Amino acid sequence: MTADTPPTAALIVIGNEILSGRTQDANVKYIAGRLSAMGIPLREVRVVPDEEAAIIKAVNTLRARETYVFTTGGIGPTHDDITAASIGAAFGLPVLRHPEAERVMRDAYGDDITEVRLRMASMPEGAALIENPASGAPGFRVGSVFVLAGVPSIMRAMFESLAPGLTGGPPILSRAVTATVRESEVAEALSAIQDRWPDVDLGSYPWARGGQIGTTLVARGTDKAVLEAVVTDLCALIDGLGLDATIQEGGG
Amino acid sequence: MTADTPPTAALIVIGNEILSGRTQDANVKYIAGRLSAMGIPLREVRVVPDEEAAIIKAVNTLRARETYVFTTGGIGPTHDDITAASIGAAFGLPVLRHPEAERVMRDAYGDDITEVRLRMASMPEGAALIENPASGAPGFRVGSVFVLAGVPSIMRAMFESLAPGLTGGPPILSRAVTATVRESEVAEALSAIQDRWPDVDLGSYPWARGGQIGTTLVARGTDKAVLEAVVTDLCALIDGLGLDATIQEGGG
Repeated sequence: MTADTPPTAALIVIGNEILSGRTQDANVKYIAGRLSAMGIPLREVRVVPDEEAAIIKAVNTLRARETYVFTTGGIGPTHDDITAASIGAAFGLPVLRHPEAERVMRDAYGDDITEVRLRMASMPEGAALIENPASGAPGFRVGSVFVLAGVPSIMRAMFESLAPGLTGGPPILSRAVTATVRESEVAEALSAIQDRWPDVDLGSYPWARGGQIGTTLVARGTDKAVLEAVVTDLCALIDGLGLDATIQEGGG
Repeated sequence: MTADTPPTAALIVIGNEILSGRTQDANVKYIAGRLSAMGIPLREVRVVPDEEAAIIKAVNTLRARETYVFTTGGIGPTHDDITAASIGAAFGLPVLRHPEAERVMRDAYGDDITEVRLRMASMPEGAALIENPASGAPGFRVGSVFVLAGVPSIMRAMFESLAPGLTGGPPILSRAVTATVRESEVAEALSAIQDRWPDVDLGSYPWARGGQIGTTLVARGTDKAVLEAVVTDLCALIDGLGLDATIQEGGG
């Protein structure tokens, strides 16, 4: 990564419970939003099963392509927690009891420490710990791969521990213009606005709620002045149709 | 696919709005649960940006590997709707106005039909239509790839239109045993239960809510009698710790 090539990221969600439809993922949106705000576009998410071969392949494909790779899930103490072993295999590293992780866990658990809990201190050799302020066992980093818990509250605590160590790019800003207009009524003008502002990512998202139909037009980019100009164009478009526009601003 | 090789599936979510963290995905859980109930395990989900190269790569990788591939998103009438063109490119097929799709849309829209709306009738040559009872424009299928809308209500209507045409395997059943127990207290016994029943996928999911901590143990498989035997083992494990277990059953 140089000053000319902004950082990018990928996320691997390890979890049979997502692929079976049992559990609604609650981690993608959080990580995606935090990375956008840090100027690190999330380029791909993969949800893979709790299988070593699938995890290895996803990790090695995505770490070859993106600056940072995050994983969630599979770092507990039970038989289905195979993420640490799989990351070790992906890097060709032995998986050993990490001395500092053991110390952290003995401090956190006190007399409640057990051999079963200490399974969570098994990590690829040379892994750097990711602090876990929410519960006892830490996450870890190997190379560009950050290994986080799947439980959302723990994942978030770990993410915030590691975030200051990431090298971000220019924060990605967004503006959203919402109106009770159908996409087909604005499609042509929108295409012209996109052509006028090629450095802005302009998305169109139809919605239906409470008997109303409408569209949210989202402009994303790193230049605040350009975004404001795009919003002016979008509002003029909606105003020209005799409708009202609502403007929202935010990261991501 | 033969009688000996059960069908599998992959899902490609096409959407910058998911990768930016703006939107919470609401389609993965629905499709995953419906496919599980039909005996078609979902093997991978990929979320990719609204970029032709990324879509082509995901489509061609996953259709070479799984029986069925589903995509959601990017089939509206605006400039950022590039799914039909990308699917055409993935298959090496020209993208043309589909005569039957045009007829369906003219019937649905009546006098409100416009050239902009008819963009949604552009599909790879030879595509089969997927009926859309929720709104006007149909989805489509090319080979083993089913192309659905991103708006959840429309996606669901399209999925239910195509579902009867899928060849399923034995439905995947599940039983969940929940108790206020920590994972580390059951990890060893759970591993022994998994070894005893190798054809069952046994997952352990810790949770924290309302000041309580607990674990949900999920057994998934196609043999109902075996699942009941696993539940008996799991309940005996929880009972042996002097705790109460709650049993849930369901598909997926």
